[in-house]
Amino acid sequence: MIEYRTLRVALLGAGSVGSQVARLLLENREELAARSGADLQLVGIAVRNLDAKRDVELPRELYTTDAETLIVGADIVIELMGGIEPAKTYILQALNAGADVITGNKALLAEHGAEIFGAAEQVGAEVYYEAAVAAAIPIIRPLRDSLAGDNIKRILAIVNGSTNYILDRMDRFGDSMADAQKTAFELGFLEADPTLDVEGYDAAQKATLLASLAFHSSVPASGVHREGISQITPEQIQAAKDAGYVIKLLAIAERITDEDGTEGVSARVYPALVDRNHPLASVHGGNNAVFVEAEAAGPLMFYGAGAGGVQTASAILGDLVSAARRHVAGGPGLGESTHADLPLLPIGSVTTKYQISLLVTDRPGVLARIAGILSDGGVSVETVQQTVQPGEEDDATGTATLVIGTHAAREAALQATVEALTASEDTQAVVSVLRVEGAE
Amino acid sequence: MIEYRTLRVALLGAGSVGSQVARLLLENREELAARSGADLQLVGIAVRNLDAKRDVELPRELYTTDAETLIVGADIVIELMGGIEPAKTYILQALNAGADVITGNKALLAEHGAEIFGAAEQVGAEVYYEAAVAAAIPIIRPLRDSLAGDNIKRILAIVNGSTNYILDRMDRFGDSMADAQKTAFELGFLEADPTLDVEGYDAAQKATLLASLAFHSSVPASGVHREGISQITPEQIQAAKDAGYVIKLLAIAERITDEDGTEGVSARVYPALVDRNHPLASVHGGNNAVFVEAEAAGPLMFYGAGAGGVQTASAILGDLVSAARRHVAGGPGLGESTHADLPLLPIGSVTTKYQISLLVTDRPGVLARIAGILSDGGVSVETVQQTVQPGEEDDATGTATLVIGTHAAREAALQATVEALTASEDTQAVVSVLRVEGAE
Ligand SMILES: NC(=O)c1ccc[n+]([C@@H]2O[C@H](COP(=O)([O-])OP(=O)(O)OC[C@H]3O[C@@H](n4cnc5c(N)ncnc54)[C@H](OP(=O)(O)O)[C@@H]3O)[C@@H](O)[C@H]2O)c1
Ligand SMILES: NC(=O)c1ccc[n+]([C@@H]2O[C@H](COP(=O)([O-])OP(=O)(O)OC[C@H]3O[C@@H](n4cnc5c(N)ncnc54)[C@H](OP(=O)(O)O)[C@@H]3O)[C@@H](O)[C@H]2O)c1
Repeated sequence: MIEYRTLRVALLGAGSVGSQVARLLLENREELAARSGADLQLVGIAVRNLDAKRDVELPRELYTTDAETLIVGADIVIELMGGIEPAKTYILQALNAGADVITGNKALLAEHGAEIFGAAEQVGAEVYYEAAVAAAIPIIRPLRDSLAGDNIKRILAIVNGSTNYILDRMDRFGDSMADAQKTAFELGFLEADPTLDVEGYDAAQKATLLASLAFHSSVPASGVHREGISQITPEQIQAAKDAGYVIKLLAIAERITDEDGTEGVSARVYPALVDRNHPLASVHGGNNAVFVEAEAAGPLMFYGAGAGGVQTASAILGDLVSAARRHVAGGPGLGESTHADLPLLPIGSVTTKYQISLLVTDRPGVLARIAGILSDGGVSVETVQQTVQPGEEDDATGTATLVIGTHAAREAALQATVEALTASEDTQAVVSVLRVEGAE
Repeated sequence: MIEYRTLRVALLGAGSVGSQVARLLLENREELAARSGADLQLVGIAVRNLDAKRDVELPRELYTTDAETLIVGADIVIELMGGIEPAKTYILQALNAGADVITGNKALLAEHGAEIFGAAEQVGAEVYYEAAVAAAIPIIRPLRDSLAGDNIKRILAIVNGSTNYILDRMDRFGDSMADAQKTAFELGFLEADPTLDVEGYDAAQKATLLASLAFHSSVPASGVHREGISQITPEQIQAAKDAGYVIKLLAIAERITDEDGTEGVSARVYPALVDRNHPLASVHGGNNAVFVEAEAAGPLMFYGAGAGGVQTASAILGDLVSAARRHVAGGPGLGESTHADLPLLPIGSVTTKYQISLLVTDRPGVLARIAGILSDGGVSVETVQQTVQPGEEDDATGTATLVIGTHAAREAALQATVEALTASEDTQAVVSVLRVEGAE
């Protein structure tokens, strides 16, 4: 029998992910040893409440409420408590003691990544976080290693399963936003407080991590432009469908150049129109997908379950094997590199296509005047579709709907143009302004 | 300015992939240094013909016909010549001299992988081969690293762009096999000698590599069951469509248990029916996709371009950065682990669903007799659809088509049953027997 070196693994948290990690770690100990070259010994599990009911039956003596003591002497610390504190303090303690850290805590990394990666670098320890974006879908390693010789142009990602589930229900079953949210909640796709998901905060944290990694730059979470889906209406969903689109909440990381020629990064989250033939359009239910466009590799897509205790545990255990191999053989981990040091540019610098729906008073010359406002604003029109309200077709001053598809325009120009459209005497209402993503 | 350690890179081959690798290596030298920690110096390019016209303009003094001398003193050797010899000899020379090797040569690795990985292990060198399966799509690292803590159950992969292009044309435009092949050839999707692609040899080489990696076992290429697409007819394509399926040439690596309870691996290639709602069904044209089912992670899919000079170069450069990082920081590479040592089981041990189309003489009791043959053979019927030939409906001894969908059955039982069906007096012809994959 081969003698493996023993590595001490401390687990912080035994919730939906942590309990599965503990189970798989104990069940697959031999397999994991053969694959990593180390015997991974689970030395303890820190929880808040020793008597809480757990998803998985584990030896009682593993549990402790004393995380700080558990960390001492561990070779690898797995943080699955969530939240900023005390997770951050424990992670820094672990790193400072020389342990490698594995975490799925996107909130913490998006907010305090620089400090955590800095602390790791100082002591030569490593931070692994494959589970923090799109759970079980391998995306951190592909970006960091497989695409390390390529230049990434853009990432369009569905990284929040809750909102994808909601939008998918509205699209496929015609649900209202409220009904779709209700169903999502009942099926466990949505937390009691839906804000983090529905308003795009969770997706924005992941956009921060994706942009930092893809562009070798430190992207501050606070600068990420964020719009949620709460304002999306069944009418917008239907109109998108009629035009051959589907509405998806996208986390976008893109390399852009602003008007002044400054090269930088855009990280943003909003509901956008995606062509129904785009691979992202067929990502249904609570699934996640990361669509990467690289200079040499062309388009790539990574697809799978973006959440779930056991799915996320798969990513954590993959990181654990990597960390163990590094302990045995040395070598680089999954740390961040920010050598490119590109600035995060504001949303105004972004260039996309738009679809604008307007209600206008249907009188002579209206189309020409609206087109004039757009062209004055520097927004070039690609398609216009005019629908006169039914039953009023011979009423010279009835209402018409204009659906305008634009060529790619700067967000800043578009916003100013939408203001001008709103102020126009011809306009009764600006019904919807949505960006179109994935085109080119 | 940071001083990087210099690593000497020798390139063997300047064809469609090699020339792009050389170009990107020279163009992105600074970026690659920042990302890998090493200055990657291209010391030379071995070719057969110094005067051949190349896709890319490169300094003439880089070219040499003396590959053996070029290898001497290189830290990293990139083999992009293709074929078994002299590629194999050069790779072994490089490894024995302590250099790391990067290759996209699936034919060589499928045939002589054990010898090559063995040589690498002996000297502590590494072999990287992300480009060998599905070109730019990251799949080797996800299997080896990201999923290292999980247990893979099955991989269904579209890894041959040529045959996917041909089948997709037949499906979408109703082309005949000959017309689809002609178009594929004209558009550069098919070589002058189509055998390697059309008969599934290329896919079988990739199945070997996927199965070895996914199941930590050494899978011999010679034992991989292989069927090509040349026998696929427009009628089969149409019948598949009518039944809600699409026909795809799949490379399959699966962990199975045979009748005797022996655990092992199945590696096989054949055209199979895939449900139109399965993610693999929407892989169109020359694209590739690898669908992985893992115990904890659930289903995952990796999608992108499966060929092309510059796309494949992306994977090679990713490997180059990994190899360089390893030179700088030490640590494990992408070598193979065969600790699980599972046997490759024959096709007869595989369990799948089937769809069988028969022409039978339409007379009383025929359905019962056919059903009897199936049940005697241990093949359980899930669905039967009987169509009497048009215009003969009141002819008591006309011809009827039976399309039988089976429950999962062992291949060996199925083959014996098909023989019994063929021999039956009721049967005029067995029109088509296709396996159904991706169900469950
Ligand atoms: N769930 C997913 O699908 C998923 C997917 C990707 C990433 N993640 C990330 O993974 C992390 C864990 O998620 P989860 O869903 O497993 O969370 P969870 O179910 O809420 O579990 C949290 C665990 O941490 C423990 N804990 C919390 N505060 C603690 C403290 N101060 N001291 C000691 N223990 C403490 C809790 O103990 P008690 O049980 O005693 O209360 C509980 O066991 C989060 O960062 C999350 O964002 C989750
Ligand atoms: N093309 C793709 O899309 C793709 C995708 C994935 C993997 N791959 C793999 O990548 C490898 C290279 O493919 P490729 O399409 O680039 O091949 P290719 O276009 O045929 O180029 C082969 C190159 O190797 C050189 N060469 C061949 N034999 C040689 C010898 N004995 N000594 C010195 N040089 C020799 C050739 O030199 P001359 O130019 O002087 O003849 C040529 O430059 C193959 O293993 C292939 O399977 C290719």
